[in-house]
Amino acid sequence: MEIREIGEFGLIDRLKENTICTPELVDVGIGDDCAVVRHRPGTVQLLTTDMLVENVHFTLLTTTPQELGYKAIAVNISDIAAMGGTPRHALLSIALPSALPVEFVVALYEGMKEICREFGVNIVGGDTVSSPGGLVINVAVTGDAPPEAVILRSGARPGDVVAVSGPLGDSAAGLELLLAGRESVPGGEVLKERHRKPRPRADIGARLASAGVTSMNDISDGLSSELQEIASPSGVDIIVASERIPFSPELQAAAEWMDRDLLHYALYGGEDFQLLFTLPEDRVEAVEAAIGAKIHIIGVVESGTGRNRLRLGDGTCVELRARGYNHFHKDVDK
Amino acid sequence: MEIREIGEFGLIDRLKENTICTPELVDVGIGDDCAVVRHRPGTVQLLTTDMLVENVHFTLLTTTPQELGYKAIAVNISDIAAMGGTPRHALLSIALPSALPVEFVVALYEGMKEICREFGVNIVGGDTVSSPGGLVINVAVTGDAPPEAVILRSGARPGDVVAVSGPLGDSAAGLELLLAGRESVPGGEVLKERHRKPRPRADIGARLASAGVTSMNDISDGLSSELQEIASPSGVDIIVASERIPFSPELQAAAEWMDRDLLHYALYGGEDFQLLFTLPEDRVEAVEAAIGAKIHIIGVVESGTGRNRLRLGDGTCVELRARGYNHFHKDVDK
Repeated sequence: MEIREIGEFGLIDRLKENTICTPELVDVGIGDDCAVVRHRPGTVQLLTTDMLVENVHFTLLTTTPQELGYKAIAVNISDIAAMGGTPRHALLSIALPSALPVEFVVALYEGMKEICREFGVNIVGGDTVSSPGGLVINVAVTGDAPPEAVILRSGARPGDVVAVSGPLGDSAAGLELLLAGRESVPGGEVLKERHRKPRPRADIGARLASAGVTSMNDISDGLSSELQEIASPSGVDIIVASERIPFSPELQAAAEWMDRDLLHYALYGGEDFQLLFTLPEDRVEAVEAAIGAKIHIIGVVESGTGRNRLRLGDGTCVELRARGYNHFHKDVDK
Repeated sequence: MEIREIGEFGLIDRLKENTICTPELVDVGIGDDCAVVRHRPGTVQLLTTDMLVENVHFTLLTTTPQELGYKAIAVNISDIAAMGGTPRHALLSIALPSALPVEFVVALYEGMKEICREFGVNIVGGDTVSSPGGLVINVAVTGDAPPEAVILRSGARPGDVVAVSGPLGDSAAGLELLLAGRESVPGGEVLKERHRKPRPRADIGARLASAGVTSMNDISDGLSSELQEIASPSGVDIIVASERIPFSPELQAAAEWMDRDLLHYALYGGEDFQLLFTLPEDRVEAVEAAIGAKIHIIGVVESGTGRNRLRLGDGTCVELRARGYNHFHKDVDK
């Protein structure tokens, strides 16, 4: 069935079921001019939004609608986690080519509802419109945090160590395998799954914040670019030791098999959604206790002017340049 | 200069100036993973979002970028007003064809900043991405309201009167003149301006709510459709007297000159952004005192099942059908 057969209102009726996880925070969800939600006392509010455009951010050749819905929410939850917040409510806007089957849209929403359930996020409103071009998805997510535990990018201090919450590069390698249509690469299926369904680290963002990290960012572009996003506003230099960057066994296996440079995936690939953060060295144990896991210390913060370096295995240093995805102007220094 | 020449980050630097009207509510605006904003104690929060797609919601043939920016925010402020709220913060997502001149985007933001200044709304974040197709704009706006003065669509009660906050049909007539390229129609320039730059009624929404209206909606589609949006969830019938519907002198002049039916513009035209509301008859004086202006009583609420009628000048009644814009399925009964 095509969307035009059931119309806008029929479609919304099908989508609005099972959208509220925490009813105590929601007075009014989908269906009126606005959603009405409750503040949690003693918190400040976090607001973030991301727009995904077909053939810019995704292609329907490498993602199912369910995975796409999951990821559209994941990128926003990841931004909330990167400030130390807890995600609460989502608004979903979708511009749909009217010839799309209803099943596509239902599957897209299934992916959205799946990750919202997983992280306790309510879908409280949105806008569903037609598109004469490709599919466009915009998600806005609110979150909250204790005011004293909001972590900015600008808080890194000389002497801090630099850490990440988990292995890097999997998503970029997974995308490469998907685009090339490569099968039977060792570890390849796991890497593809990491690209298609990235898990934001909202499980630990708030706990890292409360335990004393000084700056934080999520790794949505490559590590190189995200280091810059901390070093510049903090007014510091960061030195990363290449051998300290953590890689999954799957990426190590796949990169060896394909004769690829592991570092390239971590530095310039995107969408890992691990957290990158700085903290005083004497807080490492407390932070690990707070999240119940080891963190991966990859470098140190030095006084400086926002110039980052990578120390290679032979002791030489190379300058790191931000080379994440830049809309309108790809692969240039930011 | 084209956007690709200054890149995403150069563009954002140019846009982020003068975006905060109420700094006491904003800890962090544009530039980190999320905005950080303060709750106002004793309020609940309102959340709304609208997506505007080129050649669906607007055409660059009849609007300047500044007017488009103004309207993209206006539709969201109107939704906040329709719940009785005060708009607070906006998130702006824009998918831009990369060949657009930078000046276009700067002008679009000028229009957004103009209306945000007018209504005290902070632009606290967004997403600026490239579009392989047309221009797509998504705006999400937050607002707040005292919990006891949030007005839903579902509160109309038999015996209430039905009122609107101002004249209807101007915007639809203005659009018709713009599309037809008609000049020198009496009142025409005023009508075109009302279409291009509609003023949401956030000046009175909160005061109407506190003064005792029972249901409220903004007239973004035609009156016929918006009456349905109140009658159905309230489980009532509404009877509107055709001669009570207010029209501007400009629309009366233009409609006479063009030999058009005034009622058609009011019932089936959109984007007037006046407020439609119901209230007990004995609250009319208090409501008029609260907003410092007369309201236009156009009908009454009766017990029923969501079927609305229009009483014509000769005493006959016709059934009103919702015929606003329905994405994927135009001009059908909702």
